[in-house]
Amino acid sequence: MLVNGKHYRSVWMEKGKVRIINQLAIPEKFEVVSLKNHQEVADAIRTMMVRGAPAIGAAAAYGMALAIDNAPRNDFDNHVSHAEKTLKFTRPTANDLFRGIDHVLASIKNPKTIQEKKKSAVRASEAYANATVEACRKIGVHGAKLIKNGSSIATHCNAGWLACVDWGTALSPMYFAKRQHKDVFIFVDETRPHLQGAKLTSWELLNEGIAHSIIADGALGHYMKRGEVDIMIVGADRIAANGDFANKIGTYEKAVVAKENKIPFYVAAPSSTFDPSCKTGDHIPIEERDESEIHYIGSERITPEGAKARNPAFDITPAKYVTAFITEKGILKPKAISEVLRK
Amino acid sequence: MLVNGKHYRSVWMEKGKVRIINQLAIPEKFEVVSLKNHQEVADAIRTMMVRGAPAIGAAAAYGMALAIDNAPRNDFDNHVSHAEKTLKFTRPTANDLFRGIDHVLASIKNPKTIQEKKKSAVRASEAYANATVEACRKIGVHGAKLIKNGSSIATHCNAGWLACVDWGTALSPMYFAKRQHKDVFIFVDETRPHLQGAKLTSWELLNEGIAHSIIADGALGHYMKRGEVDIMIVGADRIAANGDFANKIGTYEKAVVAKENKIPFYVAAPSSTFDPSCKTGDHIPIEERDESEIHYIGSERITPEGAKARNPAFDITPAKYVTAFITEKGILKPKAISEVLRK
Repeated sequence: MLVNGKHYRSVWMEKGKVRIINQLAIPEKFEVVSLKNHQEVADAIRTMMVRGAPAIGAAAAYGMALAIDNAPRNDFDNHVSHAEKTLKFTRPTANDLFRGIDHVLASIKNPKTIQEKKKSAVRASEAYANATVEACRKIGVHGAKLIKNGSSIATHCNAGWLACVDWGTALSPMYFAKRQHKDVFIFVDETRPHLQGAKLTSWELLNEGIAHSIIADGALGHYMKRGEVDIMIVGADRIAANGDFANKIGTYEKAVVAKENKIPFYVAAPSSTFDPSCKTGDHIPIEERDESEIHYIGSERITPEGAKARNPAFDITPAKYVTAFITEKGILKPKAISEVLRK
Repeated sequence: MLVNGKHYRSVWMEKGKVRIINQLAIPEKFEVVSLKNHQEVADAIRTMMVRGAPAIGAAAAYGMALAIDNAPRNDFDNHVSHAEKTLKFTRPTANDLFRGIDHVLASIKNPKTIQEKKKSAVRASEAYANATVEACRKIGVHGAKLIKNGSSIATHCNAGWLACVDWGTALSPMYFAKRQHKDVFIFVDETRPHLQGAKLTSWELLNEGIAHSIIADGALGHYMKRGEVDIMIVGADRIAANGDFANKIGTYEKAVVAKENKIPFYVAAPSSTFDPSCKTGDHIPIEERDESEIHYIGSERITPEGAKARNPAFDITPAKYVTAFITEKGILKPKAISEVLRK
């Protein structure tokens, strides 16, 4: 997407380095960071400098390719296996992380020489990122059909192009609707503790000229009850075989309140987010992040000294609250997932 | 309640001044502010230096008494009527504001001389504050019966003693349960934009030695779904004749999710919060506060320049989500309200 008139992806490989837009700096400043090895990529994922399931997947794929490309000939397998562990250990919930890494690892199985393995890994990481972009583009094409002219749409957190290399998942249908000259309005909730809604989604929508209002995390229900929300679209970090899904903490509450108010609730995600090995949402691991993220906003302490906090980064929304999934393969009802996954 | 071993109310009258605990300064510092006339009281209510429906009611009663006590003999009625308007114009939602002011105004109808009116007004304001404290104490006594040993309780915003002169509404039952040596744990959500949960409720609970965790506003549903919340108790700013009630933005979402998870949902409020003139929640005015409260946290801007925000301070929760009201008159089902109000 465009930033000040120039096209960017949120993650890419350039001259042997992984380059990312620093998502911790937006909206204060726009900053591209170069990561020179897989450890730096792992740190960037862990600290959420790069975040969003599809972007994490692409960053991890590039990081894995970097590790393979940098691996010494005399200790190749060991180095690669160590890098895999380092990257997979960064964040437990997003399925795309594991998909991205495994995709690159699969690419080095057949090549015979280390030189060929290195070339293959770099190509595979690029192919993975491109496939993510293409999936997100198709999500936009399919999802835009659900958006009418004049629609008021709610989203949660940031599932835009920053989170997805390009286009986005939940926001991609809005970007396509805008290109189809549909007039839309977006409710953007802040999404504490990291404020991805207030900081990132709002910044993306401002750059695209899409009308929106930022609201406190508890305020969306108020607008839903008053009939001011036509449709809600969120992203996902992992989707179980039965259609239960993990997404940013707070998603479950919105899904329940949407259902109570008969508002269609859609989950936009590429198939890399589906995990058939998780039978239900109960099998999806939920990352618990440091409680300091609750105690501080920026450098400002908001809680009393001595207070305790809990900080689950995700929650699980059962499939029964999902109207449908918007995927690159089309719009799927929760019950259709397992069949599509099998293909 | 005790602050560093000394008993405080959150609002009181002393030497011809209204004194309040500055709720904007907690938890950073504990500060008592003196307000020398009704304009300063009105400013303190508007800026939320004093907040919480019962505390607003008491502050407004004291402010009205101050205005009457300070009114010049040659322009008494005019001065009093102007002060009434100034105080009533501060915040539209809390019913207690109007109750407190009207209580003091009623006290000057019968006395014949201005001297007697002044004395009567000061006495009435003190009686109003004392009645609020007594109502909150009784709410604690009644409400504690709902709390079992080992209970995990959720609340929203701050409906503790700071919000209520003393004891609190939603928190009063927890304070009484603690005095009955019941072991309780409280989920405290942050309550953006003003963060009354993270800043005030946590500070109160720390002072009382009650175990709790602060969580992001979207996280409570996660714990409700996992069976980690036994009961939820919130306060109210105005309760309509049919049991619909206004409370801090975010309350409605919690009530819906509590019901979905079969968690009892109680509203604790003194009868000064009931407004029989509002037939349903649709008749309760909702205050829309300045959008800067969303754009900034403390001095830190969190949203992009140019972004728009909406900031409703309250929402309406329909009576069907309320298990019962905890009042000084006992625990009342929503359907019993109108009868009790008539008495």
